[in-house]
Amino acid sequence: MRILVVGASGTIGSAVTELLSHDHEIIEASRSGEVSVDLSNPASIMSMYETVGTVDSVISTAGSGAFGPLDALTDQDFAFGLGNKLMGQINLVRFGRDNVTKNGSIVLTSGILADHPNSNSVLLTTLNSAVEGFVRAAALGAPRGIRINAVSPPMVRETAIKLGWGNGGVPARDVADLYLEAALGNSEGSVVHFRELAA
Amino acid sequence: MRILVVGASGTIGSAVTELLSHDHEIIEASRSGEVSVDLSNPASIMSMYETVGTVDSVISTAGSGAFGPLDALTDQDFAFGLGNKLMGQINLVRFGRDNVTKNGSIVLTSGILADHPNSNSVLLTTLNSAVEGFVRAAALGAPRGIRINAVSPPMVRETAIKLGWGNGGVPARDVADLYLEAALGNSEGSVVHFRELAA
Repeated sequence: MRILVVGASGTIGSAVTELLSHDHEIIEASRSGEVSVDLSNPASIMSMYETVGTVDSVISTAGSGAFGPLDALTDQDFAFGLGNKLMGQINLVRFGRDNVTKNGSIVLTSGILADHPNSNSVLLTTLNSAVEGFVRAAALGAPRGIRINAVSPPMVRETAIKLGWGNGGVPARDVADLYLEAALGNSEGSVVHFRELAA
Repeated sequence: MRILVVGASGTIGSAVTELLSHDHEIIEASRSGEVSVDLSNPASIMSMYETVGTVDSVISTAGSGAFGPLDALTDQDFAFGLGNKLMGQINLVRFGRDNVTKNGSIVLTSGILADHPNSNSVLLTTLNSAVEGFVRAAALGAPRGIRINAVSPPMVRETAIKLGWGNGGVPARDVADLYLEAALGNSEGSVVHFRELAA
């Protein structure tokens, strides 16, 4: 299969690319990659799809938003997060659906903070919850058997270490399995969680 | 208590105002009301709070977004919905928290389409899910014992009749009870549902 990974240079994106490249042709898109895309910029998403053409699956491991308590978040933080992690990923579906083959799939990324909020996750809990709502509804009207799902990644170990948060979390390699399941399994309008951790 | 109802001229807002006015002082805000506010306009929200001053509770029954399948929704539909039902209500919390008394409350409105999506609810399911995520996280960091909750109203009977969708749904008077519970009960970071219908 031909699979477009958006955010391929990131910690999760690299692991997804590595995992899926054993059996599939992967097209890696990222902000400064061979195929470049900026989620905040709708025109750049359209341009990416023109470059890439038809694919069997689109997997987004991209999208960001600011951490911090409500009174530290600025108008710009909200605008960036809504434009990037939310509308950027929604636009991956809006502008890319016609590029996905029959019975193909699109996978977006939400995150564990949707279900496990804290006082610093006001924006990310909002964005992740929105992404999850979007896939539930968008999947219902998807044409040609295209499945639309989200993965809700847990804290990734490599990221925790990089941020100096200890060595907890789940290795990116294991998080990549969730994307494989969401992209190539039978899920439809679902949010795929790392259940062992959530339980 | 002194309670600000935003969207007081709407079907739900009128019922909430009627119910709460038996025991409380209600300040009615709406787009063309005595106190005017446009959720899409941050400056108008700030100006409303300057006019209103201190309140014990802020109840939002306002916010809208377009219906329709994904491919019928325009960039403008997304921008309006995100700016109005989502950011408008988030801004009611951001700009109004300091106006709410100790142990007061803020209540936002999500909607049953968060949990019961259909192919025409892509935008509303996204917005409602986002509002629910927001209150879960924003409640955790709220100062001075302020409780932040959402009500997820079911289909309202008066609205169903007005739209020619038959006479199903729940009377606005009964939906108003959910707002009373969310504003004056013990809920914190919760989404109050009409359980009889959801069950």
